[in-house]
Amino acid sequence: MSFRQTAFLPTFAARETFLATANSSTDAAIAVAGVPLDIATTNRAGTRDGPAAIRRASRMVGGTYPDMPHNPYDLDFADVGNFGLLMGNLDESLKMIESQAAEYPHLIAMGGDHLVSLPLLRAAAKRHGRLGLVHFDAHVDTWAENYGAPVTHGTNFRIAINEGLIDPHRMVQIGIRCRVDAGTLAWTQEQGVTIIWAEDVHLSTPCAIAERITAVVGSGKTYLTFDIDGLDPSNAPGTGTPEVGGLQTWQARGILTRLGAVNFVGMDLVEVSPAYDVGEITSLAGASMMCFYMGLLAARGGGA
Amino acid sequence: MSFRQTAFLPTFAARETFLATANSSTDAAIAVAGVPLDIATTNRAGTRDGPAAIRRASRMVGGTYPDMPHNPYDLDFADVGNFGLLMGNLDESLKMIESQAAEYPHLIAMGGDHLVSLPLLRAAAKRHGRLGLVHFDAHVDTWAENYGAPVTHGTNFRIAINEGLIDPHRMVQIGIRCRVDAGTLAWTQEQGVTIIWAEDVHLSTPCAIAERITAVVGSGKTYLTFDIDGLDPSNAPGTGTPEVGGLQTWQARGILTRLGAVNFVGMDLVEVSPAYDVGEITSLAGASMMCFYMGLLAARGGGA
Amino acid sequence: MSFRQTAFLPTFAARETFLATANSSTDAAIAVAGVPLDIATTNRAGTRDGPAAIRRASRMVGGTYPDMPHNPYDLDFADVGNFGLLMGNLDESLKMIESQAAEYPHLIAMGGDHLVSLPLLRAAAKRHGRLGLVHFDAHVDTWAENYGAPVTHGTNFRIAINEGLIDPHRMVQIGIRCRVDAGTLAWTQEQGVTIIWAEDVHLSTPCAIAERITAVVGSGKTYLTFDIDGLDPSNAPGTGTPEVGGLQTWQARGILTRLGAVNFVGMDLVEVSPAYDVGEITSLAGASMMCFYMGLLAARGGGA
Amino acid sequence: MSFRQTAFLPTFAARETFLATANSSTDAAIAVAGVPLDIATTNRAGTRDGPAAIRRASRMVGGTYPDMPHNPYDLDFADVGNFGLLMGNLDESLKMIESQAAEYPHLIAMGGDHLVSLPLLRAAAKRHGRLGLVHFDAHVDTWAENYGAPVTHGTNFRIAINEGLIDPHRMVQIGIRCRVDAGTLAWTQEQGVTIIWAEDVHLSTPCAIAERITAVVGSGKTYLTFDIDGLDPSNAPGTGTPEVGGLQTWQARGILTRLGAVNFVGMDLVEVSPAYDVGEITSLAGASMMCFYMGLLAARGGGA
Amino acid sequence: MSFRQTAFLPTFAARETFLATANSSTDAAIAVAGVPLDIATTNRAGTRDGPAAIRRASRMVGGTYPDMPHNPYDLDFADVGNFGLLMGNLDESLKMIESQAAEYPHLIAMGGDHLVSLPLLRAAAKRHGRLGLVHFDAHVDTWAENYGAPVTHGTNFRIAINEGLIDPHRMVQIGIRCRVDAGTLAWTQEQGVTIIWAEDVHLSTPCAIAERITAVVGSGKTYLTFDIDGLDPSNAPGTGTPEVGGLQTWQARGILTRLGAVNFVGMDLVEVSPAYDVGEITSLAGASMMCFYMGLLAARGGGA
Amino acid sequence: MSFRQTAFLPTFAARETFLATANSSTDAAIAVAGVPLDIATTNRAGTRDGPAAIRRASRMVGGTYPDMPHNPYDLDFADVGNFGLLMGNLDESLKMIESQAAEYPHLIAMGGDHLVSLPLLRAAAKRHGRLGLVHFDAHVDTWAENYGAPVTHGTNFRIAINEGLIDPHRMVQIGIRCRVDAGTLAWTQEQGVTIIWAEDVHLSTPCAIAERITAVVGSGKTYLTFDIDGLDPSNAPGTGTPEVGGLQTWQARGILTRLGAVNFVGMDLVEVSPAYDVGEITSLAGASMMCFYMGLLAARGGGA
Repeated sequence: MSFRQTAFLPTFAARETFLATANSSTDAAIAVAGVPLDIATTNRAGTRDGPAAIRRASRMVGGTYPDMPHNPYDLDFADVGNFGLLMGNLDESLKMIESQAAEYPHLIAMGGDHLVSLPLLRAAAKRHGRLGLVHFDAHVDTWAENYGAPVTHGTNFRIAINEGLIDPHRMVQIGIRCRVDAGTLAWTQEQGVTIIWAEDVHLSTPCAIAERITAVVGSGKTYLTFDIDGLDPSNAPGTGTPEVGGLQTWQARGILTRLGAVNFVGMDLVEVSPAYDVGEITSLAGASMMCFYMGLLAARGGGA
Repeated sequence: MSFRQTAFLPTFAARETFLATANSSTDAAIAVAGVPLDIATTNRAGTRDGPAAIRRASRMVGGTYPDMPHNPYDLDFADVGNFGLLMGNLDESLKMIESQAAEYPHLIAMGGDHLVSLPLLRAAAKRHGRLGLVHFDAHVDTWAENYGAPVTHGTNFRIAINEGLIDPHRMVQIGIRCRVDAGTLAWTQEQGVTIIWAEDVHLSTPCAIAERITAVVGSGKTYLTFDIDGLDPSNAPGTGTPEVGGLQTWQARGILTRLGAVNFVGMDLVEVSPAYDVGEITSLAGASMMCFYMGLLAARGGGA
Repeated sequence: MSFRQTAFLPTFAARETFLATANSSTDAAIAVAGVPLDIATTNRAGTRDGPAAIRRASRMVGGTYPDMPHNPYDLDFADVGNFGLLMGNLDESLKMIESQAAEYPHLIAMGGDHLVSLPLLRAAAKRHGRLGLVHFDAHVDTWAENYGAPVTHGTNFRIAINEGLIDPHRMVQIGIRCRVDAGTLAWTQEQGVTIIWAEDVHLSTPCAIAERITAVVGSGKTYLTFDIDGLDPSNAPGTGTPEVGGLQTWQARGILTRLGAVNFVGMDLVEVSPAYDVGEITSLAGASMMCFYMGLLAARGGGA
Repeated sequence: MSFRQTAFLPTFAARETFLATANSSTDAAIAVAGVPLDIATTNRAGTRDGPAAIRRASRMVGGTYPDMPHNPYDLDFADVGNFGLLMGNLDESLKMIESQAAEYPHLIAMGGDHLVSLPLLRAAAKRHGRLGLVHFDAHVDTWAENYGAPVTHGTNFRIAINEGLIDPHRMVQIGIRCRVDAGTLAWTQEQGVTIIWAEDVHLSTPCAIAERITAVVGSGKTYLTFDIDGLDPSNAPGTGTPEVGGLQTWQARGILTRLGAVNFVGMDLVEVSPAYDVGEITSLAGASMMCFYMGLLAARGGGA
Repeated sequence: MSFRQTAFLPTFAARETFLATANSSTDAAIAVAGVPLDIATTNRAGTRDGPAAIRRASRMVGGTYPDMPHNPYDLDFADVGNFGLLMGNLDESLKMIESQAAEYPHLIAMGGDHLVSLPLLRAAAKRHGRLGLVHFDAHVDTWAENYGAPVTHGTNFRIAINEGLIDPHRMVQIGIRCRVDAGTLAWTQEQGVTIIWAEDVHLSTPCAIAERITAVVGSGKTYLTFDIDGLDPSNAPGTGTPEVGGLQTWQARGILTRLGAVNFVGMDLVEVSPAYDVGEITSLAGASMMCFYMGLLAARGGGA
Repeated sequence: MSFRQTAFLPTFAARETFLATANSSTDAAIAVAGVPLDIATTNRAGTRDGPAAIRRASRMVGGTYPDMPHNPYDLDFADVGNFGLLMGNLDESLKMIESQAAEYPHLIAMGGDHLVSLPLLRAAAKRHGRLGLVHFDAHVDTWAENYGAPVTHGTNFRIAINEGLIDPHRMVQIGIRCRVDAGTLAWTQEQGVTIIWAEDVHLSTPCAIAERITAVVGSGKTYLTFDIDGLDPSNAPGTGTPEVGGLQTWQARGILTRLGAVNFVGMDLVEVSPAYDVGEITSLAGASMMCFYMGLLAARGGGA
């Protein structure tokens, strides 16, 4: 099997880095990093352990697929380890994450909770300017506050929009089905954000949804944020705020692998909380989505 | 978030009552109660712990949704706790449940196994007369006996039909796919019960299924009984008698939220057995269905 | 319930043989056997415990179904226990399995990992000649080697094709979606193997897929091999090499129950690894598929 | 290994009967049977699955041990399967259990909850007269009622004493540490029951405790009832009413293997609830205690 | 059973408040409260769910015990629910906790991580003056900082000592066995703190250890802080930073119930993280220790 | 905390190598390696995942302890990753392991099942000559064959003795309590092997046991093999062949840390099977024992 170079090290024996890579160079064109910040979550905890679980499950993925013939192993990528943070200090940790993210031209980050997208977007926008956003999630994440707190895993994209990091007219949310007050929903749509409800996905096809997404974000630079709770709880029990009625992995996979026309400049995969998982299926789903994203990059010849 | 009144108590810190309500008044228009009777089950045990698990998971639901804009918190509802029962004594327990249920004008009950529907229907029929029944389940529950026992979680609706509590011509079963002898199936259909097989749901849309259900039950008073094993084992592993090929939560959600034309007078959600669950997904599915039912009530201005 | 003869022994109390049968005669027309060999797996271990878990879950299935009105209990079948093997010795174990399989005219085997299909097919081909193959799986299992090893649960069908045990033009794979190098894929299709990708199943109907399968295998003698990882990880977490985007049980069930025109002469159900399961759902899926297969046999009056 | 006759069937492949025996004859000198009644429990459910789990774990035990050189395989014993019962009907089930137990001269029963000891003792006392009792437990099980119910897994031994099935002066409880009202405790001790508190065991040695037990029960016919919750929750999490501060398995093992002077005529091992277990350790503890008991019988040349 | 007033509500059906109390009055002499702050932990997360799990398990405890004949139900106590906090903001949350704690004359708090002891001690010291401390733990919790952070669940008691909240000469740590640099250990002992190593407990008796503790804290006002990881991982797997070689529950129970001479003015039970627990054994251990503490209060006629 | 050099990377964020080391140099004085061979086990599978789980848990250990003041971080050690092996081929894999082991002057290996000790001892004996052996285990592992197989995780030390790799008069087994036929036991003792039964440990002290061990192995070169099932199932559920009555971690820790007089030249820690673990307690126990062993090396100034 040409996609895993190490002979005599079966999957179970492979190195527990992302895609079992031996490359940890901070100079690689594409950097995979863990961002285990999880102190801004409203319900269950534990996404600090997400990066390790995704790395472990990632040994089961990689290479070429029938529906993704472009190979992540053709990319110049490295697993650069986990970002540092300051325990119990949200403000400082956000600054530290942004500063560490700024060092990499193309970052694929593993959360941590969804708040990590905020400093990652700050770093990405500083490098690339205002970005389009493809956003898989059960939740809009555009609340003004959660339980009195202004900076959480549920207010991240309102802040990002308000800071001009992302262009709401080039922002599309897929899989939304959460409880949300009318005001927050109105605010979101008034900014120009496109919402593709979870049921829209169920009643349509991955191909058609991919076309809608591509139409919204256009050819400009775009960031992918994939909250694992965009998937159905049956497909991703290992997360903090599951919501019934979500996407199946075949749908997310079918959509993502068809986004070859989007000009992606970075990605995060967040909210994997392994303590609530079974059989690593949530971690595997996360690793798979990251792998397909890398296939998109490979299709265009790299991350640049 | 206007739908949860308690500031500074994030979901994880909220009260573990249904929808985290502080109202425990037995005089509320709508009463939510646990009925932890589980001694009539043919396979795995443990639904006695269903009410607690559903309450806990319910903290993740409530408020308005894109597909259910009516808010349970607009209702006058209370969580009145668990019903008493007599350990190891089925006959007496059924009487106690009926008698306690009779105190509430509109009850939303959390099982316990499916046999609890029988005393609940007895109480409801006494108040409302013969009822229509919307019945989500993998199993017909119209056996004449199970393993020699005449009163079980599999004979409940034959008894209910025979006692005249429900009108079989206004009874519709959704999700059926269990092993069942020809005689039992014939008896069920001969009574006039409409069966929507699980595969019918998969090959149709929630909207179309909701229309079929509405057509069967019409405008008369109707009871909703939701056996969580109507869902697929992947969506609801935490139950006693799972059956492959079941409904996805997006389907049940899509159907239930479209039953606004049905005149519901009571509901039960049964067969959640948390010991077999993962990541609370079964409890969450149960809590979500109850929440959507309450949204239907809110749409018409209350439970009356 | 006529489908389970033992009164007063509810499902939970039933014998833990396949379908709770009391028949262990090696002379039955159809033999169900466990083949707990699991030392050739590339990722997670534990399928040695598959037979026991499937037997246990099988107590929940059996009898007639709305979509399978033919009753396994009408068959002359026995659970003949587990096959012997030589710990840590693959070559010898394969010979022992083949030799034990040869004793039964119609065998339904429970793995163990997918390599067990190889000796089972050797025995079946010796009895029946070259066979057609209906192959549910996430993986093609036609690699030339895995991590340096030539005989694994991923090279089994290349060997079987090369040995002439199966006719690749009468071989159809359903659910494929794994990472696979271009060379292996090309080899497989060049042999004449038909591949129905997982997404094909999602975008089609069970009925249409069943027709495609039937068209490929025709009326000749055919073997059914069902790798539980053909199902989605959400439906079958209890397996060693899960792959996102797989079949739902309703699809597999809908396909399998419609294969009445296929002339099946044997079956195996492999790769159930209970240590990674939740609520027995993987074991139940396996037991259910075996039960539906037996229904197909019952429809034609037995296994002969 | 001479203690397991079946070559080429490693532990994991062995038959899932007690000690993997192939003997199911109801005429064996010693009968092992499951009694999966569990509807009289005050807290967690699920002991109906105890017998199956104990059988499965029992494949890891059997043969001779350094501290038990007498071999259960030297006994004429059989696993006769599970007793029938009537779902949801305690009275009738107790009668059925007693009647089935009466058929065996020496029964080793696997519960089910502790109430099963009552009909088992009724059958044993009918055969042997009033019995001594060695009773491992966290709880006294001599309450007059539990939550209004007179016949439960907590009132069993008051009933047994009142019915004269056991002689309280020849009854010794080991491991007691539960919450218990003063009245119940006083009643128990007034009957003449000897209580060896859990802390007594911790502060003493197995040898000394075994001597105390032997002194209490003397040379008369004696029954052994082992509630798995006599063990510490860390050693036996898989049970319904765990209690901190319990016995370690090394203590129970050290005590039990030193009871060779006691004239045992029957045994039950109850309250194993596998849904709450981890790594089968509770089931294994149960199977081990049964195996050591059989070693005691083997030491005297059989069960008679 | 006089210790649970509610007839017909077996343990499994009881209210999920601490000891199933119906009293939620903030005016009770003794208040039990949850403090679900968990963002200052160095390893695994999830103690935010500790209070709920302890409440649930607490239904299995309460009343009188052979080794604790004084009844918590004789106390005027209430479960006042959970404290509010500000998500992701440690400084503000600590202030909020202190302020809420200040409202109660005698508080029994359920963490949350061990950092919650700091604001609780601040409130207690404000009311009572400098306190003695009985501290069960695997870790000294007197580090100057952890991974760059000065305020964590490992620096809490250095801060408390430095702030003069506790008198180190009246502070005793029981169960210590963690990795700790020489400097931190020296600082701790130089302050006058008494350390009873875990192995000391194993090689001694609960009675002797209780005497040592009592001798250290004397007759002055004293606070009890019980970090569940003071127990062995086998007894308390459900925690964030387990450490091998810890106390068994029989030892902690035996020590705690013998501290009747200590003048306790408050308690916390921290670091229960249910996501890592099995069979509720960790939660049960926590609930039991709280119950025994309440027995100590009952022995002296109340919390005052 | 000087023992973990990486500021701002709390335990949960640390690198998942052994003790989170960044050193992977094959030239380090002491090499830690995984040997994930697990195809020779008689009962449950899954030790192939042992090395990864131990590495992960090892982040919780390291540094100095009250009872082990010597710091592993003072050693020149590296985590060199996993050894290659040939799937499904025991003979070849054993050769590969031996050959890889031979490259390291002082190896600390993580199994894998206990058979890995055989090639590791072959390599060690080739370098050092015949060795003494300190062997923690529930099982003697000196069978002549298991279920027909001559080379398994139960025959490893008979082979090692027969090959002269270890000197049976300098071999001591601690924790033995398994079922074992008289012949195997006699053979073992006749070779001169010293057996310290598990109950001996319970009735003695770690200090006294350490003295007995030291007396047996003397001052010659000695190898440490620690089968995690030497611990009690409550302390190490995550293993394949648990046995009741085993050592507590406080005992193993107390013994091991007192073996400073033994001249250790290598170690393995085997039989951790994470799929059966809870809360990582088994992995943690394994990592802790390895850490204490490294402390012994540090005490004498390194591994040489």
